[in-house]
Amino acid sequence: MKAAILTLGTELTRGELVDQNGAWLADELTSLGLDVLAQLTVDDDRERIKRALGGLAPEVDVVVATGGLGPTSDDLTAESVASLLGEPLIRHHDVIDRIQQLWRSRGREMPPSNAKQADLPESAQILPNPVGTAPGFRVTIEGADAFFMPGVPREMRRIFTDSVAPALAPRVSRRSHQIHLRTFGRSESDLADALTGVEEAYPGVTLGYRAHFPEIELKVLARAGDELASERLAAEAAAELHRRLGDTIFGDRDDTFPGVVGRELRDRGLTLALAESCTGGLVGAKLTSVPGSSDFLLLDAVVYANSAKEKVLGVRQETLRGHGAVSAETAAQMAEGARRLTDADLAVSITGVAGPGGGTDEKPVGTVYFGVARAGARTHTFLRNLPGDRGRIRELAAYVAMEAIRRAARGERLPGAPKA
Amino acid sequence: MKAAILTLGTELTRGELVDQNGAWLADELTSLGLDVLAQLTVDDDRERIKRALGGLAPEVDVVVATGGLGPTSDDLTAESVASLLGEPLIRHHDVIDRIQQLWRSRGREMPPSNAKQADLPESAQILPNPVGTAPGFRVTIEGADAFFMPGVPREMRRIFTDSVAPALAPRVSRRSHQIHLRTFGRSESDLADALTGVEEAYPGVTLGYRAHFPEIELKVLARAGDELASERLAAEAAAELHRRLGDTIFGDRDDTFPGVVGRELRDRGLTLALAESCTGGLVGAKLTSVPGSSDFLLLDAVVYANSAKEKVLGVRQETLRGHGAVSAETAAQMAEGARRLTDADLAVSITGVAGPGGGTDEKPVGTVYFGVARAGARTHTFLRNLPGDRGRIRELAAYVAMEAIRRAARGERLPGAPKA
Repeated sequence: MKAAILTLGTELTRGELVDQNGAWLADELTSLGLDVLAQLTVDDDRERIKRALGGLAPEVDVVVATGGLGPTSDDLTAESVASLLGEPLIRHHDVIDRIQQLWRSRGREMPPSNAKQADLPESAQILPNPVGTAPGFRVTIEGADAFFMPGVPREMRRIFTDSVAPALAPRVSRRSHQIHLRTFGRSESDLADALTGVEEAYPGVTLGYRAHFPEIELKVLARAGDELASERLAAEAAAELHRRLGDTIFGDRDDTFPGVVGRELRDRGLTLALAESCTGGLVGAKLTSVPGSSDFLLLDAVVYANSAKEKVLGVRQETLRGHGAVSAETAAQMAEGARRLTDADLAVSITGVAGPGGGTDEKPVGTVYFGVARAGARTHTFLRNLPGDRGRIRELAAYVAMEAIRRAARGERLPGAPKA
Repeated sequence: MKAAILTLGTELTRGELVDQNGAWLADELTSLGLDVLAQLTVDDDRERIKRALGGLAPEVDVVVATGGLGPTSDDLTAESVASLLGEPLIRHHDVIDRIQQLWRSRGREMPPSNAKQADLPESAQILPNPVGTAPGFRVTIEGADAFFMPGVPREMRRIFTDSVAPALAPRVSRRSHQIHLRTFGRSESDLADALTGVEEAYPGVTLGYRAHFPEIELKVLARAGDELASERLAAEAAAELHRRLGDTIFGDRDDTFPGVVGRELRDRGLTLALAESCTGGLVGAKLTSVPGSSDFLLLDAVVYANSAKEKVLGVRQETLRGHGAVSAETAAQMAEGARRLTDADLAVSITGVAGPGGGTDEKPVGTVYFGVARAGARTHTFLRNLPGDRGRIRELAAYVAMEAIRRAARGERLPGAPKA
């Protein structure tokens, strides 16, 4: 079943707003099993809206449109559709009643301009909007099933999920299944090398790669005879990916790396202290973005100044003078200091040169030392030379630190440590 | 002059990638003075690419297209254009030479598949790509000037800036001018109220609002007779906005709030220490995202655990027991402790309930206390009840803290302090 997406609004054609609805709808329609052939954005102009709809509708089975259903004079979707269909606009009184109720529930009277949102083409079937004033509607244009929704993403998504998807799903024979796996620690070409031959071993499977720096998402798309067979095939191929990549795969689509790292600590009842220099609090900010982080994170000491490294964490002045703030020795003492202060089971430190200034021949921008101090074990340090600009170096360093926390929590070998 | 944007790629129509090029190009073309009438995205299908171009070109003066210029079999842009124009594809040998050079400079030979990127329509004029292998090209389609560029954003932007914008600019009579102002601290409706009457007082000026939580960007669009008059009108209206809004406006389009706050400290040679609880390092991470933050930030103590509040910052156990970790008293002692540890000129603390758990009747989710300790002044605390979910509460709290740092650095009245 073929589909096209139409997004309406001068704020979009002028680039004042980046359209998120189009990509979201494309993803949803593709997941439902439709082939999205085109996405078109046009400005708020009656003739161009009509021409866009008239051009798309004969090419596809389904048109999904967003935007232009508001109360103002430049919201022209309903009247453009009515004009295209040669129908009058009709005031839908049940819609008015609902909008009035909504305003009253907020303790106010409906502004007269809102009545415009109830003026819809005569043949329109209403798509209720439980979270806003403008309802969506559905009409048939040149044989295509056309759905119109407001442009507010929250309202659009709700109407799509409540009314559009259920109308389309029974008419599509879904023959594919997708599994998303999230990875950190290998480059795209490394992953591709490690996965050589998977597509040949599992006919019907296509692998996709999508970078969200510094993560890479793997997509396993399986197409077998029917939905059930596709699901089974995708699961088999995903199991093979797990075998080949091990814990480079840290979770599925809904997991986040900080969430997974936090879970490793919480599940084991372990506590954590952090000592950050060049990452400036980024590791702490990431770990605490997940609720429940107060269960394990005792302290994140962001010690930018050498004086703070000394006073707060007890890094020795001789160490700072002799080896510098960016050194394995300082990283070790930062981690040990953070652990001593808090009695945490585990302490991890980061000190490096994020740039753009501060690099030297010996320690260029991107030089980052990590320290890991644990109860009952020798403090471990390792060095990474990270590529990119300040933002990427900091982001990567935060991920390397979280990866070290994950490995330490599980009792696995740390980077740079001798193999057991 | 009318323009249309065409973005090509099945990864876009399937929603696997959110197209950023379209909005970027729309913004650039609008700034150049063109009217963008439509943006169209189609999948990698020869007939649909031809039909899209054939449909758009007669409607506009300029078509700008991205994508489908790569070396693989599903990159179909050049051959679709040639077919639409009824021209053969010609191998451009100067392009091949450049691609080969690029590969050699990386110490490798050009893969044979790359030669495809030099196969362009006979009438094509090359648009050089200094940062990648695929060049852009320019042809005339039904009277419209059509520019084709690769989809890699970095390459597309470079080619647009180097070749497309200079070709278009002399042909447009720019009659408008835009100024962007960034604000924090007032809601959109507050801003609108404060700016009532500005559009009437400055005919030709339109004000726009664009929310990037928790900031709101104001856009002053001025249309006068010519470019110079528009620029002058925009500047006059912007001055009026500055008069009305004061330091709610923190900068222009290229400023960031952390950058502005850091500048206030650096310009005055002031040092800063932070003590964060519920924001988990977010304030430090934001301030240190800007280079040069090591000049002023001495310490950010993220003290999640009460034991860390006591041991690291010297918050008294009686205070934590009697008033709780989320209290004005704890906030004050956190700020004082951070200042004592570092001798910083200024120390700011944040302690609150970010949720989703941890709220009580007395201190519901969103309750956040701030402390400000300064050399030679009494420690000041204030309370904010912040709306939203965990992410929004943390983000807002970080902004409130940065705003307090800005005011303290400038010696201005702090929130909740008595008016002088």
